[in-house]
Amino acid sequence: MPNVQVKDLGTQVNSDVTVTGWVVTTRSSGKIAFLVLRDGSGYLQAVIPKREVEEEVWDVFGTLSQESLVAVTGEVHAEPRAPGGYEMLVRTLVRLSPSVEYPISPKDHGTPFLFAHRHLWLRSRKQVAIARVRHEVVQAIRDFLNDEGFTLVDTPILTGAIGEEAGNLFATPYFDLGEAYLAQTGQLYVEAAAAALGKVYCFGPTFRAEKSKTRRHLTEFWMVEPEVAFATSDDNMRLQEAFVSYIAQRVLERRESELQELERDRSALERIKAPFPRISYTDAIERLHAKGSPITWGQDLGAEDEALLAADHERPLFVYNYPKEVKAFYMKENPDDPRTVLNNDCLAPEGYGEIIGGSQREDDYDQLLARIQAQGLDPEAYGWYLDLRRYGTFVHSGFGLGVERTVAWMCGIPHIREAIAFPRQIHRLYP
Amino acid sequence: MPNVQVKDLGTQVNSDVTVTGWVVTTRSSGKIAFLVLRDGSGYLQAVIPKREVEEEVWDVFGTLSQESLVAVTGEVHAEPRAPGGYEMLVRTLVRLSPSVEYPISPKDHGTPFLFAHRHLWLRSRKQVAIARVRHEVVQAIRDFLNDEGFTLVDTPILTGAIGEEAGNLFATPYFDLGEAYLAQTGQLYVEAAAAALGKVYCFGPTFRAEKSKTRRHLTEFWMVEPEVAFATSDDNMRLQEAFVSYIAQRVLERRESELQELERDRSALERIKAPFPRISYTDAIERLHAKGSPITWGQDLGAEDEALLAADHERPLFVYNYPKEVKAFYMKENPDDPRTVLNNDCLAPEGYGEIIGGSQREDDYDQLLARIQAQGLDPEAYGWYLDLRRYGTFVHSGFGLGVERTVAWMCGIPHIREAIAFPRQIHRLYP
Repeated sequence: MPNVQVKDLGTQVNSDVTVTGWVVTTRSSGKIAFLVLRDGSGYLQAVIPKREVEEEVWDVFGTLSQESLVAVTGEVHAEPRAPGGYEMLVRTLVRLSPSVEYPISPKDHGTPFLFAHRHLWLRSRKQVAIARVRHEVVQAIRDFLNDEGFTLVDTPILTGAIGEEAGNLFATPYFDLGEAYLAQTGQLYVEAAAAALGKVYCFGPTFRAEKSKTRRHLTEFWMVEPEVAFATSDDNMRLQEAFVSYIAQRVLERRESELQELERDRSALERIKAPFPRISYTDAIERLHAKGSPITWGQDLGAEDEALLAADHERPLFVYNYPKEVKAFYMKENPDDPRTVLNNDCLAPEGYGEIIGGSQREDDYDQLLARIQAQGLDPEAYGWYLDLRRYGTFVHSGFGLGVERTVAWMCGIPHIREAIAFPRQIHRLYP
Repeated sequence: MPNVQVKDLGTQVNSDVTVTGWVVTTRSSGKIAFLVLRDGSGYLQAVIPKREVEEEVWDVFGTLSQESLVAVTGEVHAEPRAPGGYEMLVRTLVRLSPSVEYPISPKDHGTPFLFAHRHLWLRSRKQVAIARVRHEVVQAIRDFLNDEGFTLVDTPILTGAIGEEAGNLFATPYFDLGEAYLAQTGQLYVEAAAAALGKVYCFGPTFRAEKSKTRRHLTEFWMVEPEVAFATSDDNMRLQEAFVSYIAQRVLERRESELQELERDRSALERIKAPFPRISYTDAIERLHAKGSPITWGQDLGAEDEALLAADHERPLFVYNYPKEVKAFYMKENPDDPRTVLNNDCLAPEGYGEIIGGSQREDDYDQLLARIQAQGLDPEAYGWYLDLRRYGTFVHSGFGLGVERTVAWMCGIPHIREAIAFPRQIHRLYP
């Protein structure tokens, strides 16, 4: 009998096939039994009419429990009411392996318990749906950039130079070279690569040893960082809105059943279309004042300020040209207002907050050196980075998009810790 | 005048356009000057006939040096002899930024010098070609797996559990949880995910704090690790040969000019087609004896032994079923010869050596626990991994392919350190 994956059952209607999978649920009236299986590709309802099967089959059914592994053989029928759209009329049933007292029963469990059993929890319907949306988001990211002519450049995790905040770094002894730090960003490296390849991106895990315990922080998260030679801050925002719109439309197109499983409001995603509204930091401060915020010009926007601004829009909102003092040293000074830099954040709607930070990079050697020194950083460590401004310096811009925040937003889940298979938080390193 | 990338010049023949790029070379007869530019998308030869341009243009030409950034405007012509196939007859020339004493001149430099200037060296023709082949290899990997129905699952870098050799780990303090280790593999985690999603892969950086100083080792390298529920060791080898063949054919198809730049022998890559020859470890020992090797049954194959075996073949060679004692605890015992395990290595031809290690995983709880204990590992740390054998244990197999080794092989370069933008070696953490 051919072994078939559940996702391919549509090609086998009215044939006899074998499916191998794990038991999701069982129920029986005493005369007819129902078995829902999952094999990683989908869900199948198998039906066992007691009078039509060997006694042994009925007995095996009685030994099954949640997550037992079985092989079922029988005829496949279309059945629109069944999960997955097909049903099997079982002829033979073999239990391949048992599952005694599976810890995650259909009843409710507390969050700490579920994360302690994350290796098993991943098997649940909702977690499978999130994993597939994440896969789609990642592929959408790569397809968009590849189609736009970007070259992938993998940047190092172990590094001596430092990207953003000098605190909050994980460090490890590195042979005779002292300490290596785990990269918070690949940006500085993709800037070097942009001078070689024009349009580039890195895409990998990044690390923050931050003591933040919010629903938007992990100590290890994935980030994609495109960098474009000859692009201005304005070009950069146009690229970002096209990019984010593409990701959302792609999830809508290809992950319909997962969004349904997650009970995601599709209309919220359908509205994510370029162009996105834009507001300068300075105008944003005024708007916040009108809304009663006590923020003053020169302060960075906090999560509450961001929420107030984003609440006015159903699409993501760009806030651009922040005060220089609250932003990283590598952002280019705004020639029209040197108190500010040519940067932008992108704030997702529905309370998801910042998903992108981007900027045009400082391309003037002297200005960059002054900023490095002003921030108390060691110019020696940035020697290679300064070299990019010494030999054919060039206008360039780029941004970083956080994958887990984007996945959580697409899925409509409140906390990013479910948007990655094995989240790392201050208090969680296991499994 | 429209700003055009070099790669798009074919659509602009006989039009006037502007190209921005860095100076690769200049030469002049006194009457006519030639300027080769690169803009990250390709190379363009610009021609400046002294009598046909303003004096200023000729003067600007005189100030140019290697890696100056310029904007050239003029008419595009097809010119088969020019690098890239097109030529520009320059009308105006603007120097956007200077480049004084660019360190990497066309003369030969020593390897340590080049790696100390890796951030600039990336701009050279050969390094650009390698970067583009790497991009293609990565995309080939993803496209193959996605088309085969695999789901990407990003596995953690920071981890308490340990994959392979218990030594050779980078460690970092992790808040109140003691030390976290940088993952040597995502395999254990994708095994958990395979029970949720069937066919999965992880693809990220991995770390070995090994003191190996060979041309096939880095401390940080990228690895793709597919894992398949219900696949046997034999299925696993069939997947590997299809996978590797796909990668090679894809590079041949889409990176013709890069392979030419690298002077790669295409015929060597054209021969990489499934099926691959296979030899058991036991037969390999016999063959090695016939070739004069002093190896005895039970020892792991060294690089020299691998080279002797691979030298007999123009395609990659599978060596399978190694002695249990020299292999990792998670490999399934061979029921037909319990001294061995159901694993395989894949040895690339032309001296490139091991590019894949794979195995069927031990799916018996008691056997796995015994192996963990026998290797002196802490069963507590592997509790979650053992759970996979407790709840619906399943036959499954997977493998890991090293990206840098594969890229080096595709490119025909002798050392893997050039196969990644910013290599990390025992003595190198900068730039």
